Amino acid sequence: MSKTPTCPTLGEIREAARRIEPHIHRTPVMTCRALDRMVSAELYFKCENLQKTGAFKIRGATNAVMLLDDAEASRGVATHSSGNHAAALAFAARGRGIPAYVVMPENAPEAKRAAVSGYGAEIISCPATLAARERMLAEVVERTGAHFVPPYNDYRVIAGQATATLELLETVPDLDVVMTPVGGGGLTSGAALAVHYLSPGTRMIAAEPAGADDAYRSFRSGRLLPVEHPDTIADGLRTSLGDKTFAIIRRHVDDIVTVDDATIVCAMRLIWERMKLIVEPSAAVPLASLLDTRIAVHGQRVGIILSGGNVDLDHLPWLGQPNA
Amino acid sequence: MSKTPTCPTLGEIREAARRIEPHIHRTPVMTCRALDRMVSAELYFKCENLQKTGAFKIRGATNAVMLLDDAEASRGVATHSSGNHAAALAFAARGRGIPAYVVMPENAPEAKRAAVSGYGAEIISCPATLAARERMLAEVVERTGAHFVPPYNDYRVIAGQATATLELLETVPDLDVVMTPVGGGGLTSGAALAVHYLSPGTRMIAAEPAGADDAYRSFRSGRLLPVEHPDTIADGLRTSLGDKTFAIIRRHVDDIVTVDDATIVCAMRLIWERMKLIVEPSAAVPLASLLDTRIAVHGQRVGIILSGGNVDLDHLPWLGQPNA
Repeated sequence: MSKTPTCPTLGEIREAARRIEPHIHRTPVMTCRALDRMVSAELYFKCENLQKTGAFKIRGATNAVMLLDDAEASRGVATHSSGNHAAALAFAARGRGIPAYVVMPENAPEAKRAAVSGYGAEIISCPATLAARERMLAEVVERTGAHFVPPYNDYRVIAGQATATLELLETVPDLDVVMTPVGGGGLTSGAALAVHYLSPGTRMIAAEPAGADDAYRSFRSGRLLPVEHPDTIADGLRTSLGDKTFAIIRRHVDDIVTVDDATIVCAMRLIWERMKLIVEPSAAVPLASLLDTRIAVHGQRVGIILSGGNVDLDHLPWLGQPNA
Repeated sequence: MSKTPTCPTLGEIREAARRIEPHIHRTPVMTCRALDRMVSAELYFKCENLQKTGAFKIRGATNAVMLLDDAEASRGVATHSSGNHAAALAFAARGRGIPAYVVMPENAPEAKRAAVSGYGAEIISCPATLAARERMLAEVVERTGAHFVPPYNDYRVIAGQATATLELLETVPDLDVVMTPVGGGGLTSGAALAVHYLSPGTRMIAAEPAGADDAYRSFRSGRLLPVEHPDTIADGLRTSLGDKTFAIIRRHVDDIVTVDDATIVCAMRLIWERMKLIVEPSAAVPLASLLDTRIAVHGQRVGIILSGGNVDLDHLPWLGQPNA
């Protein structure tokens, strides 16, 4: 079976970094004085929107795919997702020369289907319910023998996502705060582990859309409370924490804050205008929480993971929807 | 009077680089395998869209401002422009702590006025004709004693713009081709000089919108033929060459190609989607000319200056105009 069956150690995160290094970009860390002035802090943006496939997800997917032994790998990998994990897994599988099977809801945007099939994956359509997706995934795994790589609730995936923060901390030491957006919690739990091991004096804070605030409520209550009807522009953050990501987040995250969609859109547009970087709404959630002064960072050095840049350029959230 | 009264030498370009280095970003060079595959070449994008003020123009403006002696500088600088040069000169003047006066047409977009006044310049409005702008500029210079810094037809400005290509050639040696967009010719003539001095075996090619093809026609005919009614989406390239930029371009540019607006918009969108970088239409013109196979670059290493990223996010060229 695959390695990393327990919460990743620092050694395992470092091994993940070495394992995926030939397959990913070491993304730049960028700064912007105009944004610094707005929030009265020094912001360091780790640009995973410039990562291969346009999101950090390639890190975890590649780590999981590369950890498979040859017999497992030969039967391919499978997942259900309509988002960045699907494209990442397809890309990672192509890199190893093995099949990838992606279960996608029938109503997934054509652009997302094109990205996944462009990386050579086989797409299996199913009705747009979670139950249908899980049933179809089970059928695909049964039929093909493919190995299921979950989008976030998996220690191999978490170790891979942790490498983004490992690189950030190597590039910018002495950060007072590290921030990520939080959805399923793969990025956040990985970041929290990296901060815990390498920079324990740094505060680790996750930011979440108010319309999908399961991580916030779970963190506050100490119980895993999934979101039932997520309603947010941040499409990458509509998922709920899993048991593994929640356990790490409870232990190693200092705070979780929420922010409304209007502020998320405002932050997204500011990053486009001032930094000339295309980020998706999810990636703008940490900056949005700073604009909204949800946490005190005055004069501090704040690292922010810009999680991804996959947006539909025909439907920008600050414009009317001409084709809708 | 100011230095650099003749065509910049390699020494003067290197001095300009040292002079402006504390005031500008050393911008990254980025690559994109998807775009490489589309044009069957290796593309190296020098990201001046990520430069301060969002465009390469800060290089030439800063060089000119820093070359003034204290007596000249104390009376400030002036220009007429509604584009990136105005913001760049305002920014450079603020860096030296001197006044900047910018003559802008009454119909200039509010976003551009806000950028210029945001950098602390005084805006003087005038009717939207070239004659009115020049008359108003003369009045401002007469009244204030400010020093006129032209947008491109000036050796100090050309030496400054040349530093973008100097950096590109330092970062990526052995380029087969260097490409820039061409409008007034400041960027192109600077790039051509840098290539001539440092990498004489490299072909230097400029790309121009078909709807403002004065450089193409001037280059072919050997006579300076200004554009009379420019009609192109590439708002930074509607100007005509000056005598100084034309003389350098005639001597040191290998070819000029033109491309239509539809292909420019297509190239711009590809850079947004595939590279997650915001570029303005002008910056996409070289890639557009490669998509249109206007020059043969098969298997070659091509450096491209992404000249700027200042766009109106409420009016993207591939969308309907909801506010128009």
